[in-house]
Amino acid sequence: MKRPLEPSAESRGRIVGITDGVFAIALTLIVLEIRVPSHEAVHSEGELLSAILALAPRFLTYALSFLTLTIFWFGQQAQHGLIAKSDRRLATLNLCFLAFIALLPFSTDLLADFLEFRLAVLVYWLNLLMLGLTLLASWRYAEKNGFLAEGVDAQTTRTVYLRIVKAQILWAISAALCLISPLLSVGFILVVQLVYATAPRSSLLRHIVG
Amino acid sequence: MKRPLEPSAESRGRIVGITDGVFAIALTLIVLEIRVPSHEAVHSEGELLSAILALAPRFLTYALSFLTLTIFWFGQQAQHGLIAKSDRRLATLNLCFLAFIALLPFSTDLLADFLEFRLAVLVYWLNLLMLGLTLLASWRYAEKNGFLAEGVDAQTTRTVYLRIVKAQILWAISAALCLISPLLSVGFILVVQLVYATAPRSSLLRHIVG
Amino acid sequence: MKRPLEPSAESRGRIVGITDGVFAIALTLIVLEIRVPSHEAVHSEGELLSAILALAPRFLTYALSFLTLTIFWFGQQAQHGLIAKSDRRLATLNLCFLAFIALLPFSTDLLADFLEFRLAVLVYWLNLLMLGLTLLASWRYAEKNGFLAEGVDAQTTRTVYLRIVKAQILWAISAALCLISPLLSVGFILVVQLVYATAPRSSLLRHIVG
Amino acid sequence: MKRPLEPSAESRGRIVGITDGVFAIALTLIVLEIRVPSHEAVHSEGELLSAILALAPRFLTYALSFLTLTIFWFGQQAQHGLIAKSDRRLATLNLCFLAFIALLPFSTDLLADFLEFRLAVLVYWLNLLMLGLTLLASWRYAEKNGFLAEGVDAQTTRTVYLRIVKAQILWAISAALCLISPLLSVGFILVVQLVYATAPRSSLLRHIVG
Repeated sequence: MKRPLEPSAESRGRIVGITDGVFAIALTLIVLEIRVPSHEAVHSEGELLSAILALAPRFLTYALSFLTLTIFWFGQQAQHGLIAKSDRRLATLNLCFLAFIALLPFSTDLLADFLEFRLAVLVYWLNLLMLGLTLLASWRYAEKNGFLAEGVDAQTTRTVYLRIVKAQILWAISAALCLISPLLSVGFILVVQLVYATAPRSSLLRHIVG
Repeated sequence: MKRPLEPSAESRGRIVGITDGVFAIALTLIVLEIRVPSHEAVHSEGELLSAILALAPRFLTYALSFLTLTIFWFGQQAQHGLIAKSDRRLATLNLCFLAFIALLPFSTDLLADFLEFRLAVLVYWLNLLMLGLTLLASWRYAEKNGFLAEGVDAQTTRTVYLRIVKAQILWAISAALCLISPLLSVGFILVVQLVYATAPRSSLLRHIVG
Repeated sequence: MKRPLEPSAESRGRIVGITDGVFAIALTLIVLEIRVPSHEAVHSEGELLSAILALAPRFLTYALSFLTLTIFWFGQQAQHGLIAKSDRRLATLNLCFLAFIALLPFSTDLLADFLEFRLAVLVYWLNLLMLGLTLLASWRYAEKNGFLAEGVDAQTTRTVYLRIVKAQILWAISAALCLISPLLSVGFILVVQLVYATAPRSSLLRHIVG
Repeated sequence: MKRPLEPSAESRGRIVGITDGVFAIALTLIVLEIRVPSHEAVHSEGELLSAILALAPRFLTYALSFLTLTIFWFGQQAQHGLIAKSDRRLATLNLCFLAFIALLPFSTDLLADFLEFRLAVLVYWLNLLMLGLTLLASWRYAEKNGFLAEGVDAQTTRTVYLRIVKAQILWAISAALCLISPLLSVGFILVVQLVYATAPRSSLLRHIVG
């Protein structure tokens, strides 16, 4: 007999569908903040060059948003590649994760506009923290309820936990650096994200980021 | 012989595709209403804190929209997990459902801006009602035309009906409360949606929400 | 040996993916034109009611856009359900179709804002015509190059042609009516679209719309 | 034993999903720049005609963006049709490609607004160059790491490289023409894109574009 919303592979497939949709939209929407300079203010090649160079912080924001989205797209994917089926609660946890993904452009814009304010760094860090917590909660839920795919052993399970916790520790340290200077804090976050996004093969770095 | 738009599993697959697309966009677009404070109005950490706290109603609206979208994503999914194939009429009913999903950000914004007006509550309730009616109509159509999956028995069919009707009764009661106070009405809707979104295991609550 | 972009089932699958994406976005974006009334202009339930009623043309536009998108979503789906594989040229024809789908919100807005102008009706009709022509071209191309699925006989092929041509004739007649009055023209298009979207079982209507 | 983010067919499937999503959004968003003329400025059919004709550059921009998106959608698809599985690094290269796809509407708008400026042509060309480089990098990575599908021989591999390099040479020549005149440069790019988008069968052209 079939019951509505039983744990199933299809439910898992739909989570993947809505997740890729939200990430695709987020990736595209963050570019909309980069606006073409007004034609009236530009009368020469030199003025156009200045106008484009003035957009530099926006391109930096775009790169930052892009890196963060990349990291969490892989984070979600790493989990779901190891999960065989999903029920309603696991799907809800994933939607909560997506709700904070959808908030990332806001946090990133706030950070870009208020780079010199500690509060902007804290809001951004809070967003990263909530993303980590929802990933952690959904992995724990999948593990406790036997939704993991066959062949996922205790060591792999532990690796997933460790990766999330290690990244959060690095971001917490970065956030704490805003007691010295908000810019130092942002710089540190950027470095952490670059390391995660490029997934370097260097053994020292791999040891730190898990 | 093949005919255009015969009832098929592929038609069902495309409904799933367009549904997840509309939900992904709706989830992302409702965040766009949360705007970063203007830099000119903010000169200190304290002023930035006030500016962010002033966004609180927007974050509440976002949470409300998110809960409602979650509930109806599961509602649609609960049905389609039990439907094996789809014809053009069933797909049209699903598109009508999506048309009212696409209207939800409008209704939620109206509610957020006019929390103290009965009419705003009624418009929001009307949107919830239309979502329920289109779900009801598509379930009835699928049942009458033999599109249900094998193994869906009479009891499961009845459960799907009951869940939709029970939710609508709770929302109708919530809407009626606006005769006393619109805010009470909104508070009641929020509680109903939190209960549905979290799908609690408590037996009393499960008995009420079906 | 594998060559890049050979006719394949995967290529067909990706056309389906990008098509449902464009339709999902179009369905959601047309709602963004319905804006919540400004709070400053509204001081009573009565004023809110007037403000919402003043949005009526926007809701009509939304319904019209929704019907047109529905019709062409089924049109594209009717074809692709009968096509087994796709090459690059067929995919390009489908992208041209999507380019005119993406233009529909513009044409519909123009029509809504300039209901009393013949030119607005003509632009809208031109958009419908281009959608029909791209569908016709891609069906013809699939037929000539042997991309149709097994079991698609000559009669089904003819039915697909006839449906497109019949709809275009009805829209051409509607557009011609703007010589008498643009509003009559729009009314006629609306009726035609309602008939197609609801796919009535009445034998007379089915005979006309194919 | 399963490890997170091992090279897999599923990872490849998700790249396809997010790619089609980004392209679908890009195709739809570039139309939003075409705005309906304001009703106040238009009092006759003649004035509406002028207002619509004044939008001509926007329609040209739309066509240009559309052609470019078409070409790179096929470029990405040509590659991925020949790749059997994907790991995290290949996915990251694909996301970088998508980041530059998402930037295309900006570059195209800049070009449309500053057609007579060399710098606008250079920015547009830089965007095309980055798209080519990311495609080249991901093909090279897939080849070196054994991710190519069975049946992809050395000649096919070489064809993929050659196509990318030939297109880039044609665009570099187009860009260099802006030393004579930016408009000549744009015209040349347009011709190159039309040739690629229509994929002509003429043997001379095929020989040039690969």
